[in-house]
Amino acid sequence: MSAAYRRVPAPALEAFAAGIFRFHGLPPLDAETVAHALVLADLRGVDSHGVLRIGVYVERLKQGLINPTPKLRALKEGPGAVLLDGDNGMGPVVATAAMRVALERARATGMGAVAVRRGNHYGMAAAYPLMALAEDCIGLTLTNGPALVAPWGGTRRFFGTNPLAIAVPAGREHPVVLDMATTVVARGKIIKAAKEKQPIPEGWALDRAGRSTTDAATALAGTPIPLGGYKGYGLMLAIEILSGVLAGAAVGPAVGELYDNPRRPQDVGHLFAAMRLEAFGDPEEFKARMDAMIQAIREGPRAGGTERIYLPGEIEFETEARLRREGVPIGPALWEELTALGREAGVPFPGGA
Amino acid sequence: MSAAYRRVPAPALEAFAAGIFRFHGLPPLDAETVAHALVLADLRGVDSHGVLRIGVYVERLKQGLINPTPKLRALKEGPGAVLLDGDNGMGPVVATAAMRVALERARATGMGAVAVRRGNHYGMAAAYPLMALAEDCIGLTLTNGPALVAPWGGTRRFFGTNPLAIAVPAGREHPVVLDMATTVVARGKIIKAAKEKQPIPEGWALDRAGRSTTDAATALAGTPIPLGGYKGYGLMLAIEILSGVLAGAAVGPAVGELYDNPRRPQDVGHLFAAMRLEAFGDPEEFKARMDAMIQAIREGPRAGGTERIYLPGEIEFETEARLRREGVPIGPALWEELTALGREAGVPFPGGA
Repeated sequence: MSAAYRRVPAPALEAFAAGIFRFHGLPPLDAETVAHALVLADLRGVDSHGVLRIGVYVERLKQGLINPTPKLRALKEGPGAVLLDGDNGMGPVVATAAMRVALERARATGMGAVAVRRGNHYGMAAAYPLMALAEDCIGLTLTNGPALVAPWGGTRRFFGTNPLAIAVPAGREHPVVLDMATTVVARGKIIKAAKEKQPIPEGWALDRAGRSTTDAATALAGTPIPLGGYKGYGLMLAIEILSGVLAGAAVGPAVGELYDNPRRPQDVGHLFAAMRLEAFGDPEEFKARMDAMIQAIREGPRAGGTERIYLPGEIEFETEARLRREGVPIGPALWEELTALGREAGVPFPGGA
Repeated sequence: MSAAYRRVPAPALEAFAAGIFRFHGLPPLDAETVAHALVLADLRGVDSHGVLRIGVYVERLKQGLINPTPKLRALKEGPGAVLLDGDNGMGPVVATAAMRVALERARATGMGAVAVRRGNHYGMAAAYPLMALAEDCIGLTLTNGPALVAPWGGTRRFFGTNPLAIAVPAGREHPVVLDMATTVVARGKIIKAAKEKQPIPEGWALDRAGRSTTDAATALAGTPIPLGGYKGYGLMLAIEILSGVLAGAAVGPAVGELYDNPRRPQDVGHLFAAMRLEAFGDPEEFKARMDAMIQAIREGPRAGGTERIYLPGEIEFETEARLRREGVPIGPALWEELTALGREAGVPFPGGA
């Protein structure tokens, strides 16, 4: 961590972010929800989806492209399945509400699924499945996004990075939390590299003409490479269906851009699901089986050069514990941007100068 | 297609396979179910999971390692979630029954999920989600399998090829049917190459020492490469959890081998899920959206050298239509094996000597 980074305690950062969103018209509880989701991403080391995004969210609120006071409405409602209209609300506000509905349905039936239309970019996908852990549920979410990746054999951007995230309770071990884009890497990592003027590794992205590039800005104008070729295309398509098509949200190139789109709402589609452990057996036995599996994987023989075998989410839980003590590192460019956003909103950026 | 292959009409092949399984103790309807699943795989061009597998299934029945007359039992039962004990029945028998339960739960709640323990190798995963199409449902299945793939950074075989399959209704277009192992390729393809003494492409598998190999037999003794590296490891783990751990089936190396295992049942774990389109909106509108998306993908600009952009499952539907007319191609080695199996069971292999 370079000396140019400064540390901001998570509660102060969260209060700051909430203040900004209140100023831009969100009800206090919704402002807290957005702030919580962003700072949780920073704490988990997923800073590409953290307070770095406040700027673009505020920009879209100012241009009237996001509804600060959405009225969520169930368009269709069954015991285990719900279709929600997100009313173009802030991504984390709509997503948090939808995940709560999925958990409530799972309480009643064992398995709940909620499709959402008229959503927006919802930040770190894992934020919502993580809500399931306290209720002894497995949580899952899928979302589509602005067109970036061409179908296999095609050249026109069609799919978003279409991530999936799942969180699974364990016992003494950390829960397993997988959060992955179905591209080779999440676009957020390329955005972050471009912002920091860092190169990206070979194999992450193609330029507009389909040639490999290591320049982050060039990559942002081109297309990320799908995970594993035609299988990644299949996964992306399945996620596009289960989020966009199922919900009746925008699909493919019809999904609005987040950054280069000063004209229309995104109409992102999401899916949230919750599976109640208790519906499939004894939750404590399940957690004991998780612990045993995790220990067997971690303690297995390692390949040369591997110091430790990780479970998905393990690094993030360790990072969160550390950054809750040490504070969230904020680089100089972001510091400056947040200070300006705070000045506008009458909310001083914590930590002074 | 080499002249050495002979064509067997699908109904005759199915009747033959059913006869074999009746002889080995399966009730007539269950024998039909297994035969149907195997021949459907052949028809869809997934011959690695077709009648090629009769031999190993029969071997396991003869050794008492599969229960020909299982009594399926719900160990836990809620409105939208069920835990089934497969009683070590034939894979396709247990899987077909479990998928029916998932569809029945989805009728009641909109979304049904069924976890299965004490299952066996169930053949082509897509066979079960395909059952959902006629009921205007999206169907999904996941399964674990015998340990083949090491965790990322590890060297000990732990995960199966852990496939996922999903089938989604469309309108005028073919349904989208994705069926993929989370390894670079399905092990069935390596088995088939080994059986036919064909080499495999670079990048499919490693030998026991972790070196790349193009020899199919050497690859069978080694490990398939996970799809997309650490992300493929994450997917495999998520599938291991949702099939093996959730159901309380065997997990990781505890799952019994299919081929090199003359001693114990496999105790494979599966998950089946069904989502009722009607629970999320108007099914006809959903199908119209599917058609529009499929057409937009297919008609998009193509990369140099690409003649056609395919949707997942499209090749399989076209193959099925063709092979229903032309008959299923059976190579000489398999022809001989099936003839011998038929002789033992008193069921003549169709098409004569």
